[in-house]
Amino acid sequence: MKKITSPDNPTFRQLRALSGSSRERRSRNRTVLDGLHLLQAYVARVGPPELVALSESAANSGEIAGFLASQPGMRLVVLSDALFGKVGLVSTPTGVLSLIEIPAVRPVRKPEGSCVLLDAVQDAGNLGSILRTAAAAGVADAYLGRGCAQAWSPKVLRAAMGAHFDLAIQEHADLGAVLREFVGVSISASLRGSRDLYELDLAGPVAWLFGNEGAGLSPELEGLANRAVRIPMPGGSESLNVAAAAAVCLFEEVRQKCLLKTRAGRAAPPA
Amino acid sequence: MKKITSPDNPTFRQLRALSGSSRERRSRNRTVLDGLHLLQAYVARVGPPELVALSESAANSGEIAGFLASQPGMRLVVLSDALFGKVGLVSTPTGVLSLIEIPAVRPVRKPEGSCVLLDAVQDAGNLGSILRTAAAAGVADAYLGRGCAQAWSPKVLRAAMGAHFDLAIQEHADLGAVLREFVGVSISASLRGSRDLYELDLAGPVAWLFGNEGAGLSPELEGLANRAVRIPMPGGSESLNVAAAAAVCLFEEVRQKCLLKTRAGRAAPPA
Repeated sequence: MKKITSPDNPTFRQLRALSGSSRERRSRNRTVLDGLHLLQAYVARVGPPELVALSESAANSGEIAGFLASQPGMRLVVLSDALFGKVGLVSTPTGVLSLIEIPAVRPVRKPEGSCVLLDAVQDAGNLGSILRTAAAAGVADAYLGRGCAQAWSPKVLRAAMGAHFDLAIQEHADLGAVLREFVGVSISASLRGSRDLYELDLAGPVAWLFGNEGAGLSPELEGLANRAVRIPMPGGSESLNVAAAAAVCLFEEVRQKCLLKTRAGRAAPPA
Repeated sequence: MKKITSPDNPTFRQLRALSGSSRERRSRNRTVLDGLHLLQAYVARVGPPELVALSESAANSGEIAGFLASQPGMRLVVLSDALFGKVGLVSTPTGVLSLIEIPAVRPVRKPEGSCVLLDAVQDAGNLGSILRTAAAAGVADAYLGRGCAQAWSPKVLRAAMGAHFDLAIQEHADLGAVLREFVGVSISASLRGSRDLYELDLAGPVAWLFGNEGAGLSPELEGLANRAVRIPMPGGSESLNVAAAAAVCLFEEVRQKCLLKTRAGRAAPPA
């Protein structure tokens, strides 16, 4: 394996630029996956990355060597531990970075399933957590409007734990247009909502609309949704983190759909 | 108002030490609230802080001046903008820091209501989000076992948005002892759980047990809970962020209890 020790090496410079700059990621249409878990998820869902960079310590790890041995033909380099630390993604102790092309989004269509629409969700951890929750709940499409964090930044990727490869993520989406074209019920979530979450019928496709951490949803978007829902909060404080609110809403939909399936199963004649 | 411009000023040094060091917070039993929202929540629930430090820009803000004018007798200092930035809590643009004593925890009792038990929840954002969700769901007690982030760190405080003042937070708790003494059903949440969340009866008091972001719950603790629950995930990915999982579980309890109240209300004779 090629070993890189110089900070002038072009591969090192590329990894550092992609890790630290959203403009660089956009203009190159490439990003960096931080850690072994994301690499495994990418390989399983998409294919081999363009390059895998290991720290010296990681190159000597049994778990990592085992995975890489099962993936022949992958382009590998080793960075000296000092250089690896300078890439700028210090949060991972695993010492595995993968350079990938950002996958193309499927063409926008009228969704038949449920989807999430995010208006100015700024925090990378929140955005990643919502994408992870959406993928776990079986949602296929995520539309990110103006003011959202960059979906393919290393922080969002890490928080989403591989959900990026299970979802069609449309950045810079026109959320109003998505809402108008959606076939199903569109629901905005906010403290001002007039309907209790637990009174809603969520048996069909739902477009869920969540807003900014501080300011909430823009009134124009909220006005385009069919229903405005609030989550009942019996405690003293009347607020939830947006990722927690999204988890509550998306899994209330999961609960109602599980229930329908169970009932349909009971009603069906024995096989 | 006293204006501080020197980095040798003892008040500035104290604010910087408390902001940056968990050891300092523990030994002084004090912490720093970052932003106006937390100050307002503290004043409303607990009382005046020991000190409020403003940046020069904040001292000239109408919103902040308005709130402070309504709180006579509060000890105020102004830090030069350069010095304020050096306190180390750069995430807030509001320029308001409050020095407080960490409130005493109520003596441990056998809870009559529901509670959350957290085993090695390391990420400050996750811990803060779980506390915020618990307060919104009407949970009164949070027990933090070994390996959790420090509950009163500025990052956790900011993520919890004031929930600290609505909860009894017991740090360094013996989670096994809490589980053994709990009067009600104790439920661990993990991917290995044998029961579906939506099949459980959550009408009575519940002790919810959530584990570490990577490793999950320790098998010993999981063995002490009455039930092991999993959240059904119809999507391709079988994972949720721990704060998202806690939101789903705690609000399924809220849903079931709302339903009981509605039924009781319908069954009661007209007043």
